[in-house]
Amino acid sequence: MDIMPIKYENEKLLIIDQTLLPCEEKWLTLDTKGDVWEAIHWLRVRGAPAIGIAAAYGIYVSMRESKADDFAAFSEEFRENKEYLNSARPTAVNLLWALERMEKCLLAHKEGESVAEWKAALLAEARAVHKEDEDGCRMLGEYGLSLLRPGMGILTHCNAGALATARYGTALAPLYIGQEKNYGFKVFADETRPLLQGARLTAWELFHAGIDVTLICDNMAATVMKKGWIDAVVVGCDRMAANGDGANKIGTSGLAILAKEYGIPFYMFVPTSTIDLATASGEDIPIEERKGEEIYRLWYEKDMAPAGIKTFNPAFDVTPAKYITAVVTEKGIAYPPYEESLRKIIVD
Amino acid sequence: MDIMPIKYENEKLLIIDQTLLPCEEKWLTLDTKGDVWEAIHWLRVRGAPAIGIAAAYGIYVSMRESKADDFAAFSEEFRENKEYLNSARPTAVNLLWALERMEKCLLAHKEGESVAEWKAALLAEARAVHKEDEDGCRMLGEYGLSLLRPGMGILTHCNAGALATARYGTALAPLYIGQEKNYGFKVFADETRPLLQGARLTAWELFHAGIDVTLICDNMAATVMKKGWIDAVVVGCDRMAANGDGANKIGTSGLAILAKEYGIPFYMFVPTSTIDLATASGEDIPIEERKGEEIYRLWYEKDMAPAGIKTFNPAFDVTPAKYITAVVTEKGIAYPPYEESLRKIIVD
Repeated sequence: MDIMPIKYENEKLLIIDQTLLPCEEKWLTLDTKGDVWEAIHWLRVRGAPAIGIAAAYGIYVSMRESKADDFAAFSEEFRENKEYLNSARPTAVNLLWALERMEKCLLAHKEGESVAEWKAALLAEARAVHKEDEDGCRMLGEYGLSLLRPGMGILTHCNAGALATARYGTALAPLYIGQEKNYGFKVFADETRPLLQGARLTAWELFHAGIDVTLICDNMAATVMKKGWIDAVVVGCDRMAANGDGANKIGTSGLAILAKEYGIPFYMFVPTSTIDLATASGEDIPIEERKGEEIYRLWYEKDMAPAGIKTFNPAFDVTPAKYITAVVTEKGIAYPPYEESLRKIIVD
Repeated sequence: MDIMPIKYENEKLLIIDQTLLPCEEKWLTLDTKGDVWEAIHWLRVRGAPAIGIAAAYGIYVSMRESKADDFAAFSEEFRENKEYLNSARPTAVNLLWALERMEKCLLAHKEGESVAEWKAALLAEARAVHKEDEDGCRMLGEYGLSLLRPGMGILTHCNAGALATARYGTALAPLYIGQEKNYGFKVFADETRPLLQGARLTAWELFHAGIDVTLICDNMAATVMKKGWIDAVVVGCDRMAANGDGANKIGTSGLAILAKEYGIPFYMFVPTSTIDLATASGEDIPIEERKGEEIYRLWYEKDMAPAGIKTFNPAFDVTPAKYITAVVTEKGIAYPPYEESLRKIIVD
């Protein structure tokens, strides 16, 4: 079964409510801009690419019933809705990126078009955003698969999967494409404390897709490696510096060190939009620290450490380039030295 | 404040109920053999040495009201109670060890003693079991402290603390003794998934003792090491082979690899009773696998992974001797090669 967390079908925008996973699989119909705002705000749709796709369809949904009868009124309404939707998660870069792309599309159709055609252009652009993400993930998957062989044991961390994108995901894309080709991977998913994206999302989507997946706690990674069960580690990336240092979910850098110790290749899946050549090295990537409640309170209901305990809760860590065997992008695979290979992929 | 999880005061056997930690600190009085059985069975007292101490006092408690008036009747009642208490946790080695030691004590007092004296001998022996454990932990702490310097950052995993012993603990003993001497350690405690002994017990006891402790998720260890916050890693041991390979809570071996990568000394605290010279290497130590519910169900209440998900849940891992900087015992510190140094400590 194919995981596509966002659909636009029969004139309905549908998303799977990720806040209910893994206990419940519920599709929501987003009929109004208020529905879209609420879904993005409350993380019912999450993952940078998926947020962008939802926002692109969302701004179309907000305009498809528009009663405006000239471009000035239509575009004024568009701008208001754009501002409103952008407020759903103020720091999500892909949200603003998608809304601005939709606005550019609208402005490009200003001359000689009817309201119906403006609406059609917006829907077509949203479908393009969606399709381009799917195509990019497919390419990540094809390149990634070229590094793997049938029957391999694969370890992954956090959720770099279909749920965060249009389809396939980034680090999980080769697993889905391998599944189409009967590669028979044996996947191990770290639960990924504190927010358990591995247990709640990765395990759910791979299990749902019929891929052989085993859930482990983060601290069991060394054991599955030592047992010889892991032939490759695949992870996503939130931001990669020009030298190949890659920030990703907390715990990634430790996995990379273990992989090196056990001689296991460590692959980072990095859409080119995530490579930031203006950042020289991982030292320059700021790391978000989050609240201690995420660690000491389970689902925010029950304390599992003494009240008032001091915590340190970095959301990400930086994996130094020296531990990364290859960087997989939708435009090809980069190998060390990354200063040269990443620039070549971006500039070419 | 000093953590001593078991007390015998004013003719009362008291334990802190560890199942209620860290939310509630409640002392239970164990007045009957049934109370003792229940406390051991339901892990209200846990940790191998602490179970042994509770059992030693427990068999005395079971006999102190005995109406027997000759040795035959008294020792028969003792054997029945011993069998009953030993059934509380059938696989706990220290439970049987303590009960057999108490029986030996009773048999040694067979000749020419009164019922009152048999009872007094049992209480004295239970106090000796208690005191010897405290003394052993104190020595572990003194030797351990000789490896540390004031102000150091220390990382620990699971609970090798006072709660598991008479006092001080094993790996945590140098922290308590350092606290007496104002060493000002900065301690980081891994939460230790899946059962969270680090969050629930280690964080609680260090916090309670006024030691500077910061709780982190297991997957954050590499980050605190990279930041230069960790000068030493201290962990306990469940069983050490003759070559120095040490089995301990799952996640320990990964920490040892990270410590090696960052050039941080890794110390394992191993009472000599835990060193098994009959086991050649870690390959020969069987590792218990536990149920998946511990991973995918939080406190057994709410699922956090898809129903039916496959899991791998080893309770322990083996840290190869090559990653262990030194083995701290109550009789001294062993350094590589451990084949020689451990044997010397045990045999001397």
